[in-house]
Amino acid sequence: MGADYYSAAVQGPHEHFELGPYTLDSGDTLPAARLAYRTLGRLNAAKDNAVLVPHMYSGTSASMQMLIGEGRALDPSRYFLILPDQFGSGLSSSPSNTPAPFDRGHFPAVTIADDVRAQHRLLTEQFGITALHTVLGWSMGGQQTYEWAVRHPEMVLRAAVFAATAKTPVQNQLQLDVQCELLRADPAFADGFYTDSDDVHLGLSRHAMAWAATSTSYRFFRDEVWRRIGFAAAEEFTLGFTRSHFQPMDPNNLLRQAAKWRAADVSLCTGGDLKAALDRISAEFFVFAFGDDLLFPVEDHERDAAMIRNARLRVMESPLGHFTMFGLIPEDAAAIDDALAEVLKS
Amino acid sequence: MGADYYSAAVQGPHEHFELGPYTLDSGDTLPAARLAYRTLGRLNAAKDNAVLVPHMYSGTSASMQMLIGEGRALDPSRYFLILPDQFGSGLSSSPSNTPAPFDRGHFPAVTIADDVRAQHRLLTEQFGITALHTVLGWSMGGQQTYEWAVRHPEMVLRAAVFAATAKTPVQNQLQLDVQCELLRADPAFADGFYTDSDDVHLGLSRHAMAWAATSTSYRFFRDEVWRRIGFAAAEEFTLGFTRSHFQPMDPNNLLRQAAKWRAADVSLCTGGDLKAALDRISAEFFVFAFGDDLLFPVEDHERDAAMIRNARLRVMESPLGHFTMFGLIPEDAAAIDDALAEVLKS
Repeated sequence: MGADYYSAAVQGPHEHFELGPYTLDSGDTLPAARLAYRTLGRLNAAKDNAVLVPHMYSGTSASMQMLIGEGRALDPSRYFLILPDQFGSGLSSSPSNTPAPFDRGHFPAVTIADDVRAQHRLLTEQFGITALHTVLGWSMGGQQTYEWAVRHPEMVLRAAVFAATAKTPVQNQLQLDVQCELLRADPAFADGFYTDSDDVHLGLSRHAMAWAATSTSYRFFRDEVWRRIGFAAAEEFTLGFTRSHFQPMDPNNLLRQAAKWRAADVSLCTGGDLKAALDRISAEFFVFAFGDDLLFPVEDHERDAAMIRNARLRVMESPLGHFTMFGLIPEDAAAIDDALAEVLKS
Repeated sequence: MGADYYSAAVQGPHEHFELGPYTLDSGDTLPAARLAYRTLGRLNAAKDNAVLVPHMYSGTSASMQMLIGEGRALDPSRYFLILPDQFGSGLSSSPSNTPAPFDRGHFPAVTIADDVRAQHRLLTEQFGITALHTVLGWSMGGQQTYEWAVRHPEMVLRAAVFAATAKTPVQNQLQLDVQCELLRADPAFADGFYTDSDDVHLGLSRHAMAWAATSTSYRFFRDEVWRRIGFAAAEEFTLGFTRSHFQPMDPNNLLRQAAKWRAADVSLCTGGDLKAALDRISAEFFVFAFGDDLLFPVEDHERDAAMIRNARLRVMESPLGHFTMFGLIPEDAAAIDDALAEVLKS
């Protein structure tokens, strides 16, 4: 059953911050919105060791634990790590967990800014945090990092984006259109009004096909790098890994996240002027691009970095493409940890 | 009506070579297979000026006329240009034009080798041609060129492939899976047993979305190159151009072509040994890669070229990616004509 996937039994323990009536950028007001999150480590007395780590598409706050550990850069013995869930993650307010009139296909569109406004309330109201040591994220987590650095420059001392842009490129929007259409094309999706997400298994499988074609790289398959991560055949990776990742998820949740990703644009707060938006950033800012990323190519990172004061651009080469962040091969895991260390000590 | 698209009124005049009962690689025998083709120019007395130009996916023999003209490299006053239609093009034997028991969804799988065997009969039986001045093609036309150069090395004096590989890479197969699944997901497709291809307009539109996401390049959208080819907005290109290209076509025809593309592999004739297959090539061989091609990246061309004796690899830079071949911007058109001139005089 898809619904179980979002349970604490699967996702691990997490907290909820009650937002109360919460008005979204769409104009809709969720009557009792909730922001799920989890923390690791302890906030110190000076409240200057808080690190915010929003998650990527199809992830939850649990996913970002992959970056964290004793002895690693993101060490909970040193930092207070706050892992918020996106709206639509299935843990924060989402199509899968919101009662009528905003249930399932009725759940409104959400934006990256909706997430960041909710996270801001969590940090200030719940923890009394006025400045973040660091905000960092991968992919949609990077989009949220951009929104944080532009919207609350005074609060963000350091920021790092991995494989993410300040405004979603058109080419990437087309890739999203394909993956969403594959999901929606399943008649069982029924415009978002299925009763059990398992009924939409065909749509979820098709959606996984689009991910298989964009998640790694040409080189990953050309050089059979899947062997290095324990697969005996390419199909085992493309069908096995990718399909099993998405199969337990809720299609409406995925579609709300994807629409948010597609519309991501920090220049919405400066009337469409991207340079002006990025000019607001005062953080020590790191832009990490993955050399073979098929979703967010290096060049888009170069363009963003050129508009950010003191931005440091780093290109990380790996055949894993967009999935470099998972650290599936040891070099990736080491490079990501080194990158995080550089950001945190900057 | 989709069926009209394949008429002489739309496609222009073309001939048919009757193959009679034709046994495909699948083992199925088409009782009365036909190979459509058209020629431009005249075969000289020595029969040494024949140039074969097979076409790309979703094209017909008419498409390749875009490369041909008086004063251009492929000048019909100088060469005898033979433009064959693929099986599945809609003009040669195809799901859309074959009677029961091989009509529509019953039409068997076809291979690149099936095409080349039929073309070989056309050349030898109809025209008495024993050697081809040149074989050249783009994309699936390039796959057929590879098959010619490997299968009939003694007949192919010069060959040029543009944006094509000797064996379809896994990454490219995944892209094909996405586009085919988008087409098949339309309930009106009915496993290939629709009565009117217009009924599958949703599937055809979705299939066009996949093409919009792979046909050009990140740079094409980043730098708004669509402005240079007369579009006022990115959507006008992605939805307008791409969708209108595919909308009149027959879904079964497209799917048979795509399956053929997906399975393309010249090493099938050498027991899976690609090096041995490419070692058979004796032609002056040109490999043209398009720098920003999202379907067939440069590196795959490098790998093929390294296995071909005397291969000349040329990388052509254009934001048009896989669509560089269309010559939609003047630099592309000039570069393609220069490339063809180099091949023909080699």
